[in-house]
Order: sequence, then structure tokens, then C-alpha cells
Amino acid sequence: MQTISENKAFGGTQGVYSHTSTACNCDMTFGLFLPAEAADGPVPVLWYLSGLTCTHENAMTKAGAQAWAAEQGIALVFPDTSPRGEGVADDEAYDLGQGAGFYVNATQNPWAPHFRMWDYVAEELPALIAEHFGIDPERQSITGHSMGGHGALTLAMNLPGRFRSVSAFAPICNPTGADWGRKQLTAYLGEDEAAWARHDASLMMAKTGFDGPILIDTGAADQFIDLLRPETLASAIATRRQQAVMRLQPGYDHSYFFVSTFMEDHVTFHADALWA
Amino acid sequence: MQTISENKAFGGTQGVYSHTSTACNCDMTFGLFLPAEAADGPVPVLWYLSGLTCTHENAMTKAGAQAWAAEQGIALVFPDTSPRGEGVADDEAYDLGQGAGFYVNATQNPWAPHFRMWDYVAEELPALIAEHFGIDPERQSITGHSMGGHGALTLAMNLPGRFRSVSAFAPICNPTGADWGRKQLTAYLGEDEAAWARHDASLMMAKTGFDGPILIDTGAADQFIDLLRPETLASAIATRRQQAVMRLQPGYDHSYFFVSTFMEDHVTFHADALWA
Repeated sequence: MQTISENKAFGGTQGVYSHTSTACNCDMTFGLFLPAEAADGPVPVLWYLSGLTCTHENAMTKAGAQAWAAEQGIALVFPDTSPRGEGVADDEAYDLGQGAGFYVNATQNPWAPHFRMWDYVAEELPALIAEHFGIDPERQSITGHSMGGHGALTLAMNLPGRFRSVSAFAPICNPTGADWGRKQLTAYLGEDEAAWARHDASLMMAKTGFDGPILIDTGAADQFIDLLRPETLASAIATRRQQAVMRLQPGYDHSYFFVSTFMEDHVTFHADALWA
Repeated sequence: MQTISENKAFGGTQGVYSHTSTACNCDMTFGLFLPAEAADGPVPVLWYLSGLTCTHENAMTKAGAQAWAAEQGIALVFPDTSPRGEGVADDEAYDLGQGAGFYVNATQNPWAPHFRMWDYVAEELPALIAEHFGIDPERQSITGHSMGGHGALTLAMNLPGRFRSVSAFAPICNPTGADWGRKQLTAYLGEDEAAWARHDASLMMAKTGFDGPILIDTGAADQFIDLLRPETLASAIATRRQQAVMRLQPGYDHSYFFVSTFMEDHVTFHADALWA
């Protein structure tokens, strides 16, 4: 593992690190914020999964999460959104290939050799940060924005016991039913829709739900809301009687101005679960 | 004036606007955050001047200032750092020309026709925002980062009565005595150093000081600290017995991670003066 940069921030350290990923078969870069408390022993950790076109850097510099994580004494992990590099397949569209991993293990070519973001975020990166940093693997929570909200919700429901709480900002809620999803799931997983189901938060909610609290914020003026389909997940949550808070925020759009506005609420929500 | 974008943020609006500038003789773009309170009447305003290479956008997306401005009910203005465009002179170096206006009125060619950032920030933009937005011109304060900290301090001391408080993050404190300054003041103002003096915060502190409170933060691990020369301004402040708080922050560097860490302190400091 290689240190790209370390900047003191809010009494702790905002680091950027790269490593050779076995899951993705290429070098991967991630951001990690450690609060001051990490010097004294393992701290809880909140994962932040980013949306389409983002790298590890967007949320790290624009979401304003470190202020609240420092206040709560919890670490933040900012993974990249896909494998990258010259030998890695890509597509001209912004929503397929590099920057658009969708948090699945691709089974179809040309994606299969590298696009294994599920294994990367669910297995390889958690093990790596637990080995190298003062993180408590028993206290993890997860959040994300847009495609990353999809990732957070599907990881949380597919890995029972792993995360104490899950939240999302403007998540893709029903990718099997919208253009942000059908296109990518076909490309990465093939045409058999049975393989898609575990990567759809609304279907997973109907099937298993989540054993813990959920918080979801979506801007009522989100320009992509028809692609997100929050109504499908809201219905599934209500049908299951799942413990959850879903909020539609009047006037807010899909941008990081929306994310940063409600970041304090989300970090506080997770801290309540992580420190319980 | 043209609206480039408006995003709801922290209950208010983060806007970006462009207009044809008389001072700079080209189109200029700026960011403006209005808190929710602006709907009910004029609100106080805090100016944020950015550093070398920045546009209006960097601080607007990375400094985390809106959260605290919303809490305090004050507006934020984010001007650009220089004139821009195809007809505007530039230099290959990052620290001269476009992105490096240094908040002066250039008298030397090729800079004189456009590089009039002093007039732009001191006169034209304040009049424009007072005309178009719910800003109270009687309640203004100013801050900035690096070159923008230099701008904030020199504007505040040259325009007595304009600003109720001034602060700076890692400001260039003594440009007549360091490479971040001598090079640009020579290029923009010519070789007669008498014309430079009002653009040097340390010299202005010795000459006039500031009729109000000052807050200055600098990272003790700032990689550019030899160019900033905080010791010169600290000495001038102490010699004058100027009301001021100067802090050296151990471990912090020159980045926006440093700026965002102490943003709450600065906005609160200005709010105390603006609401007094």
C-alpha cells in the first residue's frame, strides 16, 4: 500500500492511499479520514460510496463529512467507483465502464476481468483498512450518493450483520426498472434478470430487508428522480414495516449542495448506531 | 447579469452568476450563497477571496462555508481571482495572469486593460450584488485564503468603515518581501515600489491598521509558509497593539482541508461582528 497524500483535517488525518487490488486486478485508490481518536485505539467506520463519474476524491473534498465525523469520532472511507487504468475496459458513455462500476461483480466481457467492485468493497478493502489502520471492524455503517446509495443499500441488505446502519442520498432505488440500471446490469451481468435481483434495493427490501435503522434523503427537485424511483423503495419499505426514515426534501436537486446540506444528519444518524 | 446555476443548499440558495464587468473589461463569474433569511429582507454579507489558480468555484464547493453561513443567517460572495477569456493576457506560470490577479489595478502592459481586480472587488461587484440581491451593504465583512487572504487584509485596511471584521486563512502577509508578491507587483504595477505599499498587509498594518477585529489562521506545517511571511504581519500587529487573534495551527498545511477545518471559527467570528 502506498501513501498518496495525508492532510491534517479537523484534528485528524485525511489520507489518500493506493494499492494493487486482487479483486479488480489493477491499482485502486481510496480516501480515508481518521479522527483524532484513532490515535488512542480502533474507531468505528462509516463507508461512503460515490455516484456515477466520481472518483474517491469528490465526496472527500465536497461532501463536508469530515467535520461531523470528527465531532463523532468515527472514520470515513471513500472508495473509487470502478477499476481504472489503461488495461481496463471502458465505454464512451458516462454511465458505463470506468466511473460506473455499479458495485457488482461483472460476469460478462469485456468487463469481467476487472469490474468486481462488489468483492472490492465487500471484502478486499475492508480487510485492507482493518489491517493497516485503527478501524474497528465490529462497528461499521454505510452510506452513499446516487449509484453509491444503490451500492450502500444493496451491500447492507446482502451482508446481514456487517453494518449497524445504512443511509443514502438520492439513491438509485430500483435499477432493474429504470435506465440507470437495466443498461449496466445487462452489460455487466448478462440478460438473465435473476442475476440482477440482489443488486436492486427495492427487490432486496421485499425479500430480506435490513436488520437495523435506515435513513434515506432524496431531493424533491432532483433532476434524475425518474431514474431513481424512490417510490418503489418507499412502497417496499412500508410493505415490510421496515424501520426506516425516508425524506423528500423540497427544492433540493441531485448535487453535492444537497448531499452536504444533509450530511450532518446522516453522520449523526450513523454515530448513534455505531456508538450504541 | 445572467444566472449560470442555482442550487438549494442549507435552506438557502447557492447561485452562480456572470455579468459584463466594466472594471475588468470582460465577462466575470461569481458565486453567491443566500441563506433562507434573505427571503425576508437584507442580510449581512461575508466576502471570500480565493487564492492562486482558483476560480469562483473552489471555495464554493470545498470550503464548507455554507453550513455555517446558513446557521448565522449571512450571505457569502465568492468572486473569481482574475479576469479571464481569450482576449485577456496570460502567462505560462500558475502565479501570474489568469487565476492570479492579486487584487490590484494593473498599470503595466499587457495587464492594464483587464487586470483591475481591486476596482472589481472594492467597487463594481459590491454595487452589483447590492442592486440585485437582498444584501445589506452596511453589514459587510471579508475573509480569504492565501492570495485571497492578502486581498482581504489589504482591502479591509484601505477601505476604512467598509468591513466590520476581517479574517484570513494562510494569507500572503508581506508580498513586497517574498516571491509571492515581488514578481506580480513588478509585473502589474511596475518597478516603483512606492506603488506596492498599499498592497502589503504588513506595511498597511504599520501605517493604518484596521478599526475592528482581525482573525488569522496559518498552518504551522504550511508548505508555502516561507512565502507567506506570517512573522512580518505578527510583528506589525503587535507593534501597533492592533485588536487581533493570530493562530499557528500545528500540523495543518495550505490545503482546503486546513481551510474547512477552521471555517466554522471564521464564520462565527464574522457573525459576531455583523450581528453586533
